[in-house]
Amino acid sequence: MTIKIIGFGGSFRKESFSKVLLKEAQKLAPKNTEIEVFDRFNEIPLFNQDNESNPPAVVKEFKDKIKKSDAVLIVTPEYNYSIPGFIKNAIDWASRPYGDNSFEEKPLAIISCSTGMLGGSRAQYHLRQALVFLNTHPLNKPEVMIPFVDKKIKDGALTDKDTADRIANMLEELVKWSERIKKTV
Amino acid sequence: MTIKIIGFGGSFRKESFSKVLLKEAQKLAPKNTEIEVFDRFNEIPLFNQDNESNPPAVVKEFKDKIKKSDAVLIVTPEYNYSIPGFIKNAIDWASRPYGDNSFEEKPLAIISCSTGMLGGSRAQYHLRQALVFLNTHPLNKPEVMIPFVDKKIKDGALTDKDTADRIANMLEELVKWSERIKKTV
Amino acid sequence: MTIKIIGFGGSFRKESFSKVLLKEAQKLAPKNTEIEVFDRFNEIPLFNQDNESNPPAVVKEFKDKIKKSDAVLIVTPEYNYSIPGFIKNAIDWASRPYGDNSFEEKPLAIISCSTGMLGGSRAQYHLRQALVFLNTHPLNKPEVMIPFVDKKIKDGALTDKDTADRIANMLEELVKWSERIKKTV
Amino acid sequence: MTIKIIGFGGSFRKESFSKVLLKEAQKLAPKNTEIEVFDRFNEIPLFNQDNESNPPAVVKEFKDKIKKSDAVLIVTPEYNYSIPGFIKNAIDWASRPYGDNSFEEKPLAIISCSTGMLGGSRAQYHLRQALVFLNTHPLNKPEVMIPFVDKKIKDGALTDKDTADRIANMLEELVKWSERIKKTV
Repeated sequence: MTIKIIGFGGSFRKESFSKVLLKEAQKLAPKNTEIEVFDRFNEIPLFNQDNESNPPAVVKEFKDKIKKSDAVLIVTPEYNYSIPGFIKNAIDWASRPYGDNSFEEKPLAIISCSTGMLGGSRAQYHLRQALVFLNTHPLNKPEVMIPFVDKKIKDGALTDKDTADRIANMLEELVKWSERIKKTV
Repeated sequence: MTIKIIGFGGSFRKESFSKVLLKEAQKLAPKNTEIEVFDRFNEIPLFNQDNESNPPAVVKEFKDKIKKSDAVLIVTPEYNYSIPGFIKNAIDWASRPYGDNSFEEKPLAIISCSTGMLGGSRAQYHLRQALVFLNTHPLNKPEVMIPFVDKKIKDGALTDKDTADRIANMLEELVKWSERIKKTV
Repeated sequence: MTIKIIGFGGSFRKESFSKVLLKEAQKLAPKNTEIEVFDRFNEIPLFNQDNESNPPAVVKEFKDKIKKSDAVLIVTPEYNYSIPGFIKNAIDWASRPYGDNSFEEKPLAIISCSTGMLGGSRAQYHLRQALVFLNTHPLNKPEVMIPFVDKKIKDGALTDKDTADRIANMLEELVKWSERIKKTV
Repeated sequence: MTIKIIGFGGSFRKESFSKVLLKEAQKLAPKNTEIEVFDRFNEIPLFNQDNESNPPAVVKEFKDKIKKSDAVLIVTPEYNYSIPGFIKNAIDWASRPYGDNSFEEKPLAIISCSTGMLGGSRAQYHLRQALVFLNTHPLNKPEVMIPFVDKKIKDGALTDKDTADRIANMLEELVKWSERIKKTV
């Protein structure tokens, strides 16, 4: 049976490194695993709790895809030492209303990147704190933080073999983790 | 001379507790201090770095108001154990492009609130980490975290005397802090 | 078969609230579950990496008990908005040397307490970040943070029924979680 | 007038990188600035609140030196994605009892290092959270995080020119910051 991973993140830049990484992750997925990328973040409005029970169609679709997935992959840059606003905004929509949190019990992995030396790590730990509340199960190891990402991507493709290997390895571990924690009740 | 504080935050809910708290803060401001509330967050689009050098007019206005202020006041709920996406999104815009960070060297205070027992404290520490990068100077004490905020606001007004006193005290300390760290070069 | 939980934490105060909570947790353990409290933290010296391969006997015993356990329970106060030094110190010993980390793959739950309103929550999230590196699997829900703990303990016993219920519930969930994520190779 | 900085941290390893960095910082101090290293952490016992009002002589000395300093410099490795236990333990002593916190209002800078790529950054942000409670004023910029520190130190001396420059620059900024925020009542 095919394992379905929903991937999202990115930035909206035309040359977004995270978008490239999402595409590369699709290619690097283990066999019997399919990564679908949700790429309509730019259509998601700012979260308004008054509308949480009747969100825009794009949010409904986003939530639906997460719920139907076996696991989640977030690819994110770091803005101001934390999660980019647009990624947090999408997560805020997808977690509401109370009792209809799409991330509930999902296995999850994070790839972060930056042009600096820390590879977006600060965004990862803020995300992990959010995931406690969301009752999501993030993979512990390996962590993939990609520093100097601008030197590792060329013409819209990942050119760094070591980074590709780490992503492939993480995806394998994510599949194992997702099998392992599956609720079997 | 009048000290000018720019206040922002809130949520977009009609009955937003944070909006009430911003209004109350305006009333509680020390003498010779004026708090202007920037209330157009809902017009700010999701951040796109490709547009950072030529942002929408609403972002220009937001940045301009921050730059002209003597201090900043953020009033925020907590979403998913972190900063709400829409607040982070506004901060992301206001901090860019590189070299044009509106928060540079600003004294700042945070009020957070929640209907739970932790009063939004988790959002505060994530904000503080962002503020290191933004080279902002947040007040250490007092911290104002308002738990069970729904029990402390009625008909759009703050009814809890103790909370009002703490906000008034924080604003006084913010003014002192802002005088103290003023660059005098 | 009996589930074995190793519990530790506390402070060294004679009237330590955390010690009381550890004792109460022992009584509240679900059936077929046994909580053994490791109470020799005060004998553990400050960590010195030069000695990590040949640690003091008390550290060997601590590591051994963690390894043989099915799950781990940490009960901690909060010092200076973070993990108390003596608890971090014990964890530092137990995680070393490289390749001999006692916490590897352990299911784990945290109880924190404070005399203030935040119940030690800030210590919990710092602990959770350490647990990522330790490849430990902390329970997401319920989180047990006990505010105003000095009002809930009298003569060395927990007097607050609601807190006792929450601890009992957490222990049940910890047992389920530990069954669920067991590695079955 | 001479600016006095108290420096501490390290690990207890004979070949501790942090100890080397403390020594190098002493040499790199700006003119009219003196860095005294407090090097008796290994004599500080685990914190026991029952003794906080009458701490061991070594703690009294530590607190006294911090109080008499114009600024504080912490040099720290990262253990388990957080502050090493022994450093947190010393801070816990120095901040107590209530009302006698040595760090009150002190300007402070942090150097962290690790043999990995993140340079101890995770320890820095946990430290910064503790410093909010301690009412300390950490420098925002520059942050000094030294990755791959084992490649930058040889025979007990720092051999990396870029790292030395960054430390020298940070110390200059620390002195300016300490002048700037001085309380002039």
